[in-house]
Amino acid sequence: MISFQEALHIILQNKGNYPNEKVALVNTLGRVLKEDLYTDRDFPPYNRVTMDGIAIQYDSYAKGQRGFKIEGVAAAGAPQLSLVDPTRCVEVMTGAMLPAKADTVIRYEDLDIHNGQANIMDESLLRGKNIHKQAEDRQKGALVVASNTLIRPAEIGIAATIGKTHIDVAMQPKTIILSTGDELIDIGDTPLPHQIRRSNVFQIQTILAQQNLDSAVKHLADNLEQIKEELADLLEKYDLIILSGGVSKGKFDFLPRALEELGVQKLFHKVKQRPGKPFWFGKATNAKKTIVFALPGNPVSSFLCTHRYILPWLRASLGLPEQQLPYAKLTESYLFKPDLTYFLQVKVSYDEKGRILATPVTGNGSGDLANLSNANAFLQLPEGRSVFRKGGVYPLIFY
Amino acid sequence: MISFQEALHIILQNKGNYPNEKVALVNTLGRVLKEDLYTDRDFPPYNRVTMDGIAIQYDSYAKGQRGFKIEGVAAAGAPQLSLVDPTRCVEVMTGAMLPAKADTVIRYEDLDIHNGQANIMDESLLRGKNIHKQAEDRQKGALVVASNTLIRPAEIGIAATIGKTHIDVAMQPKTIILSTGDELIDIGDTPLPHQIRRSNVFQIQTILAQQNLDSAVKHLADNLEQIKEELADLLEKYDLIILSGGVSKGKFDFLPRALEELGVQKLFHKVKQRPGKPFWFGKATNAKKTIVFALPGNPVSSFLCTHRYILPWLRASLGLPEQQLPYAKLTESYLFKPDLTYFLQVKVSYDEKGRILATPVTGNGSGDLANLSNANAFLQLPEGRSVFRKGGVYPLIFY
Repeated sequence: MISFQEALHIILQNKGNYPNEKVALVNTLGRVLKEDLYTDRDFPPYNRVTMDGIAIQYDSYAKGQRGFKIEGVAAAGAPQLSLVDPTRCVEVMTGAMLPAKADTVIRYEDLDIHNGQANIMDESLLRGKNIHKQAEDRQKGALVVASNTLIRPAEIGIAATIGKTHIDVAMQPKTIILSTGDELIDIGDTPLPHQIRRSNVFQIQTILAQQNLDSAVKHLADNLEQIKEELADLLEKYDLIILSGGVSKGKFDFLPRALEELGVQKLFHKVKQRPGKPFWFGKATNAKKTIVFALPGNPVSSFLCTHRYILPWLRASLGLPEQQLPYAKLTESYLFKPDLTYFLQVKVSYDEKGRILATPVTGNGSGDLANLSNANAFLQLPEGRSVFRKGGVYPLIFY
Repeated sequence: MISFQEALHIILQNKGNYPNEKVALVNTLGRVLKEDLYTDRDFPPYNRVTMDGIAIQYDSYAKGQRGFKIEGVAAAGAPQLSLVDPTRCVEVMTGAMLPAKADTVIRYEDLDIHNGQANIMDESLLRGKNIHKQAEDRQKGALVVASNTLIRPAEIGIAATIGKTHIDVAMQPKTIILSTGDELIDIGDTPLPHQIRRSNVFQIQTILAQQNLDSAVKHLADNLEQIKEELADLLEKYDLIILSGGVSKGKFDFLPRALEELGVQKLFHKVKQRPGKPFWFGKATNAKKTIVFALPGNPVSSFLCTHRYILPWLRASLGLPEQQLPYAKLTESYLFKPDLTYFLQVKVSYDEKGRILATPVTGNGSGDLANLSNANAFLQLPEGRSVFRKGGVYPLIFY
């Protein structure tokens, strides 16, 4: 059995490699940028007025002049005006182009305006005040967002400003999530005593949806021939197959066998961790090099494995750097005897010293689905120890 | 001018109140639950086998018996079997119902199976081992998720398990984002020297989309009569109107006037903060009690105000509790002279002591859109001070 670290390492070494696609900017939230974005103009593109008020030539002020006759109004969105008479001023609006020959803006708050004349009441005025200078932020042609960046609202704003109606992003792996196990029925059905409703696949599907990855969902019956037939077909169509259940040692757990018979190379089976020990990972020898995550069937195991393995794999496959995990401080001591990496469910809070605190939310182990709703993260407790004292600090996986 | 705290307080006091709607479970990610969810059966619904192996009566083991003839196989999804002969065993699979009269499960790893007989190699076996007992996690009728909870993948899994194909969630306010300013052109257009492309509205729209709030987008020209006519129409149709630009003191900033003439009561205008000082907030006297956030036009201001004001308002309006902000430690000293709450752009990292660190990412002020992409949070520095020393701890707003 391999360690958690070895498992994650193998998974990241087998990241996918997908082509790019051009997508309308407004639909790229949460996707990964696959081109460098450069400014098409200076940022800002002109000497931009940042306060409503008047624009003057500073030299007149420096010579002692305080009253300036208004010779025009410069609105945002209007072509540039020129200050014709250096002893007069132009009324200017936020966002407007600074009039040519003007070099300083005085805001209304520091003015007294009467009968078409503005009187400056600021005796400590500085040259160049209230102007966002052309190219002050970025020059034309500067790199503003590099390829392989996650696209957030800030990046969408930048791309809009430089005129990108469409941008290159990483194509998402075509993904399907398969539930297995004859005990499972649909959400809308009434279970017999030995049956339970399908839930894992919807958890996994929505975790992926939070990362903007769409996925299909399907159920496989516990029948080796049927499973093989269906999987053979799905391996042709999908880049990423996630299976839930059917990977432990039971007589009816056909998956590892079916997968290997279909040419999916097992890269590992079983990890020294709880929850999620029977986790199986493999890669197909087909053209698509389909990646198969076969997750244990219990809800907390598949939930944890999706967060701790599939999301880092997805990030790596799309070209994002590995995410730095936060560390959190245990607020009470915790005992965990088995020599396994333990993912403890915790509720996160913050203290006023800038620390992240993790309070154990103890449920009934990996089958206790309801407990997941009371916590909001896993604390990753390393193998090789059994006592985790209050105040100890460990990596944190938010969910 | 009011303080940041006063502004936020007024906004939260004017939260909206929207009806509920029933939505298909798979479409509820990120919505707010508006019913209590109770278990419809015990969790787990039966004594559930948690390891593949055999099930026995512990008393036989206690009397010294180690070899058990296998009398049947209990698969997951099959009706319950019964252990007919207490000196025999039933082979059991993970997820199966524990056979009646059996009380203990021994996993394959601790067995040696030959010719239909299982020999137990574990000399320290405990009664009741490897069984997830019926109702151990939750009894039938127990509250598992309370109303007014944000729906995450965990809650979707729980709702699926209890058979909720549809659930009651808070209806979202009907929302439109309006850009103003004659200097603005569309993303796909080539700007004249005095023009810039629209970007704020797409930033705001995607910040709201991250919270699963859909919104429309529209542009208003700088013309008082036209603005009034359009706004009058929009006030009939929308619960939430977000305006970007047009709220400072300029001759062409018609919005505050137009809004007040249309019966939108001004609750405040201008806040002692940077960026975002000219921020205007109001509430209509119409039937919908439309809320109007009129944000300053520069991109960092409207970005910050959306995160710091509109999202908390949205959470409150949907019934979620106020979010506890994390605190982060400044990694270098920072000087900010004006007596305003300052939202400093920072890049967040984590140290191995469980602390959140904030490193200033200094751009060129509120107009520097490109700088937003280099940071991932704002650090909220209070008014009344100008020196913020390295090691100081302040509230953090992630974006």
